[in-house]
Amino acid sequence: MDLENIIIIGSGPAAHTAGIYAARAELKPLLFEGLNAGGIAAGGQLTTTTDVENYPGFPDGIAGPDLMKAMRDQSVKMGVNIKTATVDRIDFSVAPLRVYTGSEVYEGKTVIIATGATARRLNVSGEEQFWQKGVSACAVCDGPLPIFRDKTLYVVGGGDSACEEALFLTKYGSEVVLIHRRDKLRASAIMQRRVLAHPKIKILWNHTLNELRGEKLLERIVVKNTLTAALSEHEAGGLFYAVGHSPNTDFLAGALDLDEAGYIVIKNGVTGTSVPGVFAAGDVYDKKYRQAITAAGSGCMAYFEASDYLNEKG
Amino acid sequence: MDLENIIIIGSGPAAHTAGIYAARAELKPLLFEGLNAGGIAAGGQLTTTTDVENYPGFPDGIAGPDLMKAMRDQSVKMGVNIKTATVDRIDFSVAPLRVYTGSEVYEGKTVIIATGATARRLNVSGEEQFWQKGVSACAVCDGPLPIFRDKTLYVVGGGDSACEEALFLTKYGSEVVLIHRRDKLRASAIMQRRVLAHPKIKILWNHTLNELRGEKLLERIVVKNTLTAALSEHEAGGLFYAVGHSPNTDFLAGALDLDEAGYIVIKNGVTGTSVPGVFAAGDVYDKKYRQAITAAGSGCMAYFEASDYLNEKG
Repeated sequence: MDLENIIIIGSGPAAHTAGIYAARAELKPLLFEGLNAGGIAAGGQLTTTTDVENYPGFPDGIAGPDLMKAMRDQSVKMGVNIKTATVDRIDFSVAPLRVYTGSEVYEGKTVIIATGATARRLNVSGEEQFWQKGVSACAVCDGPLPIFRDKTLYVVGGGDSACEEALFLTKYGSEVVLIHRRDKLRASAIMQRRVLAHPKIKILWNHTLNELRGEKLLERIVVKNTLTAALSEHEAGGLFYAVGHSPNTDFLAGALDLDEAGYIVIKNGVTGTSVPGVFAAGDVYDKKYRQAITAAGSGCMAYFEASDYLNEKG
Repeated sequence: MDLENIIIIGSGPAAHTAGIYAARAELKPLLFEGLNAGGIAAGGQLTTTTDVENYPGFPDGIAGPDLMKAMRDQSVKMGVNIKTATVDRIDFSVAPLRVYTGSEVYEGKTVIIATGATARRLNVSGEEQFWQKGVSACAVCDGPLPIFRDKTLYVVGGGDSACEEALFLTKYGSEVVLIHRRDKLRASAIMQRRVLAHPKIKILWNHTLNELRGEKLLERIVVKNTLTAALSEHEAGGLFYAVGHSPNTDFLAGALDLDEAGYIVIKNGVTGTSVPGVFAAGDVYDKKYRQAITAAGSGCMAYFEASDYLNEKG
């Protein structure tokens, strides 16, 4: 078994950026892109989006899957060794560090974890059909797109993210309706105040999402009153899920310090984790920014820190 | 005078990324691109580079000036209001915050400073002529390019950066020669040990760079012995400056906390500065990573933090 300098787990912008930098530095990185790991194709969350307008360098926008193909092509060209296999287990109690894909084991001096996070879904009827066809899990990414202008937009959730997304969407929609299953928001006091005071935001208390309807694009949603079980149908120009993300950290089985939501805890705003030689990049630790460009930036930082670690250990 | 939501100072990847995000959020940002500010054209340090191979998304590489044109075009398309004028003075002791370009004054609720840093030069004969034609201030960026393979590469400097660059370049050059003006390195003990022990690295003690020579590309350098004043000429396949960077913070005149080298001090690894409502992005605070992709990532973070600040202040 070869001893790798750097093993990268993941296939989104953070993983490929770390790979591009490490390969250019002739560290011959080994990168594992999962097989539908986290419920998403290799390439990560961007493969579930359409137009990306905010990744700097593409004035006409670029489709999410095309951006990830470009990054993967760049990795390959620079010499990243890409294996298509899901890392399902690790052992960081030994040196060198070990990662497993089923019965295969690989050893590395350093490991960069860039397995991302997955937007939670509600698994209601029509969700799969209209995903990215009027339904999105990212208002900042998709809200400004033309299809959402001057329409009634719905947001599902009740925390800070849901409130932020609702406020953000008031800039584009004719009105914004927040669907919340309880009679009280979980969000912080200040976010609640701002949402409740906003003239363009309405709240549908005690309702859950039941069904999505339309032809090619989402056109209507059916919601259910949690008190009376009554169903009602509403025209919807857009629907935004803000019911949280799940970081893809189950396979770590507690080997690294995680926060209460399962995100990897990093040190001093950089990418070091609780285990020396193990670094984290992208949405697997970042629950605030969650953008392609911030993930790519942190992948670059993880490379530099892994490289420093390799230099120090000789 | 209009009161701006966000004033962005700078025109590199950090500035334009903040602009793209802020414009998409309908905050109508005002961005100042300087006129040869910091000794560099609008667009920043990337305008002084040729092929950029490590900005993720461009498998065939992209010329630095082309990447910056693309980012600027994207800013314009999203609605960033770009003014070509150098901010030469600020007043952050007042609310709203003020920035000046000569006799013009602009007011903003928030300011993002993304004025970057400038690689120090030595102003020797031939430097201007061969810049990016065999001479570079960034080994990580340019070292892997084909023109430097299996050549004798020179590095000027004596600190940690110079040692890191020399070690990095051993992967590409046939040998690496570190030119240092004293008889002792300033670098940390561990970096010194590694450089001194490396079979491919030679040190030219007590020498300074005197002249660069060649046809189209750099071919030879002339160095001067600081003890004897003797000049000698050497074949050089590449020359890397590692004599430090100067952050472009003079115009701040002490209004923000800076470190001993003049870089803006940020909080907790994110972009807040010592003045509420003022944020920093890119190389103006980052003396470790200094990459296009990390600068762009931090520009995105600065947008989110400025936006949060605007939300909190109503």
